[in-house]
Amino acid sequence: MDLREIDQFAKDIIFEAGKRIRDAFSYDIKVETKADANDLVTNIDRETELFFIDKIKAFNPNHKILGEEGMGEGIESLDGSVWIIDPIDGTMNFVKQHRHFMITIGFFVDGIGKLGYILDVMREDLFYAIEGEGAWYNDSPLRRLNPLPLEEAVIGINASWIAPNRRVNHEKMIELVHKVRGTRSYGSAAMEIAFVVSGKLDAYISMRLSPWDIGGGTIIAKEVGAIATNLKGEPSSLLAQDTFIIANPSIHQEILKNYIEEK
Amino acid sequence: MDLREIDQFAKDIIFEAGKRIRDAFSYDIKVETKADANDLVTNIDRETELFFIDKIKAFNPNHKILGEEGMGEGIESLDGSVWIIDPIDGTMNFVKQHRHFMITIGFFVDGIGKLGYILDVMREDLFYAIEGEGAWYNDSPLRRLNPLPLEEAVIGINASWIAPNRRVNHEKMIELVHKVRGTRSYGSAAMEIAFVVSGKLDAYISMRLSPWDIGGGTIIAKEVGAIATNLKGEPSSLLAQDTFIIANPSIHQEILKNYIEEK
Repeated sequence: MDLREIDQFAKDIIFEAGKRIRDAFSYDIKVETKADANDLVTNIDRETELFFIDKIKAFNPNHKILGEEGMGEGIESLDGSVWIIDPIDGTMNFVKQHRHFMITIGFFVDGIGKLGYILDVMREDLFYAIEGEGAWYNDSPLRRLNPLPLEEAVIGINASWIAPNRRVNHEKMIELVHKVRGTRSYGSAAMEIAFVVSGKLDAYISMRLSPWDIGGGTIIAKEVGAIATNLKGEPSSLLAQDTFIIANPSIHQEILKNYIEEK
Repeated sequence: MDLREIDQFAKDIIFEAGKRIRDAFSYDIKVETKADANDLVTNIDRETELFFIDKIKAFNPNHKILGEEGMGEGIESLDGSVWIIDPIDGTMNFVKQHRHFMITIGFFVDGIGKLGYILDVMREDLFYAIEGEGAWYNDSPLRRLNPLPLEEAVIGINASWIAPNRRVNHEKMIELVHKVRGTRSYGSAAMEIAFVVSGKLDAYISMRLSPWDIGGGTIIAKEVGAIATNLKGEPSSLLAQDTFIIANPSIHQEILKNYIEEK
């Protein structure tokens, strides 16, 4: 398997999809709500996923595809060559802000992450990695993350997890908020993961993410030394919803051990 | 007084200051901490404020200047022509992310806001307003905000105010978090205000802001119909720290009345 060739193919279709989305802003955006009112879906979201499926099937009909919009076949294992795709991560930002939404893609072979991509669509900024070769932000190599004490960390976390919730002891999360230098929340998991791998945030925590939210990002994480796991400290599931933390290696264990108490 | 002339002057110096800051990224950023470790200050911050003071004093020596870094004269009233300046709002973003920080400036005559500016320095995006003439995002007029129910609102709020704190009843803030569609936190008050005036957020709340954080933004708010007050519903102080909320007019009163309980 020629990873370089697949990497070039992936970049080509990601940038083309980004351009299609930017162009589509000249048209009205039709929005419908899924069961969860927080989860807006747009036509563009679906069209972008179909675009990726068509391109990948033409590139290699044996490759399997797992996408947020479910336009690909359902998959039950990561055997073989698998693309995990979120055509638009941060749908509410997309609808409301017309910025801060990402295309994110991971390419796995027999469950091993080989290529990872996060494109900030409106900025045309690409974070990406090739397994064992490193990670880049556009044309610049991403450096391995420098250690820092938790007191100096800025972490991405949504307000829902600081309020009482069914997933974790929020009292512990409040302690974490008081411990760190600052918190941020951007409304796009892939954006927050891209910020962690590039040192713009030092950690990002979520109690409920799907494989397509994290697939690409976990591959980039590995190349810069960021640690990405679920809240038990194990690899997050790539076939089902799971909890998630990605962090600078110097604070990953400390956050898990002292501040996360799952219910 | 020719407001158009002052507006042109203000834009010239804001864009020039923005360019100087972007250029300065080629050099190392020296960081020192103020009393509050959360409040990082950089040399560039101070140099930018001095740049504004020099330019304004050359433009009109009678104009007074209130700036975050305190390089101007202290002022005790808003009599006469007063510039309220934050050379870099979002200092921690500046240091860590190299993006998401703003220059923000308000120009007041006898306490009345005449000209307001928020420049996203790295994007070179300018949000601005001229009293009574309207507001713009770069070359596009900003529309008056459309009403929406609180359930559909996305609001900017820092995690500190959802955790127990000395300023407000955090239990009420938790109710607000559960009521709205989503929350965001960007680490720059001026950025969050710019997002509210342009409909990218529907409200932004903070328990402690300074005049330079909000001076420019409140002037833009007026032109798009956003309501900006302190948490008692009165105009926020422009001479001292105060609480702050800026919101879409359809939800401003509802948030204040049902979800804010000051201690």
